Amino acid sequence: MLAGPIQELVDELGRLPGVGPKSAQRIAFHLLEAPKDEALRLAASIAKVKEQIRLCSRCFNVAETEICSICADPRRDPAVICVVEDPRDIVSVEKTREFHGTYHVLGGALNPIDGVGPEQLRVRDLLNRLGNDHDHKIAEIILCTNPNLEGEATAMYLARLLSPLGLRVTRIASGLPVGGDLEYADELTLGRALAGRHEMAG
Amino acid sequence: MLAGPIQELVDELGRLPGVGPKSAQRIAFHLLEAPKDEALRLAASIAKVKEQIRLCSRCFNVAETEICSICADPRRDPAVICVVEDPRDIVSVEKTREFHGTYHVLGGALNPIDGVGPEQLRVRDLLNRLGNDHDHKIAEIILCTNPNLEGEATAMYLARLLSPLGLRVTRIASGLPVGGDLEYADELTLGRALAGRHEMAG
Repeated sequence: MLAGPIQELVDELGRLPGVGPKSAQRIAFHLLEAPKDEALRLAASIAKVKEQIRLCSRCFNVAETEICSICADPRRDPAVICVVEDPRDIVSVEKTREFHGTYHVLGGALNPIDGVGPEQLRVRDLLNRLGNDHDHKIAEIILCTNPNLEGEATAMYLARLLSPLGLRVTRIASGLPVGGDLEYADELTLGRALAGRHEMAG
Repeated sequence: MLAGPIQELVDELGRLPGVGPKSAQRIAFHLLEAPKDEALRLAASIAKVKEQIRLCSRCFNVAETEICSICADPRRDPAVICVVEDPRDIVSVEKTREFHGTYHVLGGALNPIDGVGPEQLRVRDLLNRLGNDHDHKIAEIILCTNPNLEGEATAMYLARLLSPLGLRVTRIASGLPVGGDLEYADELTLGRALAGRHEMAG
């Protein structure tokens, strides 16, 4: 129905996450009507990402160089490692501006049904980082996996694995989102918020 | 926060219609993790569309050749011209499988606020098509612009312009969508449905 190259583009766009057939068609026609240099800039950006981006050899964050910009930053504290599932979780943590340590990207979470065990994650690389820490600089591991079934199982597994090493192992808090409403909170979240209550100075 | 090339890609993706910052980031990381040939196929598709697609010299549909596949198809009836605002409206009409004539793409709708008058649309090209029709083959013009303010104004304008030429000029029906519900219909649509009522054989 559509001219060949447009249909091809619609098909390729439809493979992207969150892009349905209608959006794919809308984006394809947008690109068709857009100035040529704007459309080709997008094509070039895709190629550039595939050419130039690799994983940091230390933390497995996305990087342009051997070591990512966070690991290479002397202002970041290498004594605190925040363990995340995915490089995009680093973006979320960085946006808080609350964390000044370094990261370790697992590359997923434990999921026996999908065949993801500790060997499929970068657990051994984390242990190697700790093993190579001869000056005992690393003081704390923050388990920042998602607060869902797989993320909790991964955090539990890592806590058991790392606790004997004499490090402080912490888990991010679960509870009500800021600006939230008790009335609309699900019972699991509210239960976690109660269990995780803390002293409040008067 | 993100490595340069990824941030560039997120920015480029964020310019696409219907793609917000979160979706842009999700798509960028998807492309980063996707097999290289899959990502580059998308980049190549964009370039190919910009290189190979042009507008049909007769109806202004998107085409790979001088004349689009619909205009070139001998099974299509050149006596009936369906006037649409945009090439993607042709896709919608074609999906109905109800129309076997040809098209004319206006390239928009009248919109005095945005400075779109008849000169900015392909109205003159439509008149030229009718003027060159020395055998008086063209019998009907179906005004298939959107049933909104601009589309209605455009249909009204074209109806006035074309009626004196002794052609049948028709407008697509407005009314309740099939599978719809009177209770949820807005009053304008229901009003149109009543005004456009037709005899029903018992």
